[in-house]
Amino acid sequence: APSGMGCPRRLLLVSNSTLHGGGYLGHCQQHIQSFLGEKVKRVLFVPYALHDRDAYARTAREKFASLGYELDSIHESCDPVEAVRKSEAIFIGGGNTFRLLKALYDNRLIQEIRKRVLEDGIPYMGSSAGTNVATVSINTTNDMPIVYPPSLKALGLVPFNINPHYLDPDVKSTHMGVSKTCQS
Amino acid sequence: APSGMGCPRRLLLVSNSTLHGGGYLGHCQQHIQSFLGEKVKRVLFVPYALHDRDAYARTAREKFASLGYELDSIHESCDPVEAVRKSEAIFIGGGNTFRLLKALYDNRLIQEIRKRVLEDGIPYMGSSAGTNVATVSINTTNDMPIVYPPSLKALGLVPFNINPHYLDPDVKSTHMGVSKTCQS
Repeated sequence: APSGMGCPRRLLLVSNSTLHGGGYLGHCQQHIQSFLGEKVKRVLFVPYALHDRDAYARTAREKFASLGYELDSIHESCDPVEAVRKSEAIFIGGGNTFRLLKALYDNRLIQEIRKRVLEDGIPYMGSSAGTNVATVSINTTNDMPIVYPPSLKALGLVPFNINPHYLDPDVKSTHMGVSKTCQS
Repeated sequence: APSGMGCPRRLLLVSNSTLHGGGYLGHCQQHIQSFLGEKVKRVLFVPYALHDRDAYARTAREKFASLGYELDSIHESCDPVEAVRKSEAIFIGGGNTFRLLKALYDNRLIQEIRKRVLEDGIPYMGSSAGTNVATVSINTTNDMPIVYPPSLKALGLVPFNINPHYLDPDVKSTHMGVSKTCQS
């Protein structure tokens, strides 16, 4: 979809990194390849949503290598802002949305990622929490608030919110606690 | 359990206000009566976790009347802090934990409720979100962050957190999205 800046906004927002019975990003690998195309050579990976960033980067690097792309993990860079400035494409992986958003703020990446995607038009791919933070805010996440980000406002790459793990209510359930949606 | 202040800390922390098939607080009404006893005449109700405070107060007032207690809703008071200072017992109802905690901060009630319960020893009853906010923090809530409280720290009436709606994982589920617990 074209952005207001006159530059095409290129987004691939995936709900889950893994479908039942499939490997990491296995269910959407053809979409990834057609989305990134042949011009992109390196993808900047953001593993902040998980605690073990090294292990997460290994998993992602292996998968993207199999699809023909090099992968740099932003947590291995001594200057994350500069890493975003130089990136050809960004992929933010899933995990805990609060942990992810807090790390994006802590590393001063919100404005920089917005600029790269909305003004420079580089491809942005998100999965799960990485999809949540692409929206206006994380007010509709199902994740637990395990940390306290300075705001719930997110990247705002799309002008609406997404709940990537919405489940229709189970009408047969007798559990009268919290549903997956906004509790009333 | 006795608090560190030498004053007994009196808490009734309920997970849900309604069990399947039962009426409002029906499953725990005997506990409420033995908890509040005959000395308490009036209960201060805090309906902040729900949007419709008037309707919520009506429901609670009716139930407590049937148990022999008058109920004042804090949202009908022009001075909520003073209402807490004068309260004989406090009941915080369920709803959205973020909305509730934000309203407790907005109305400057955190320290005042702590003082009444931990120093003056008045009975505190919580249900669902009202149980969440009685703990150290709301970091373990399942609720959606529909508003942004100034902190996730809560009343700290007990020295641990509670997840009042924890469900054991469904091992048969093929949904690989968010579980009810901390997402990894």
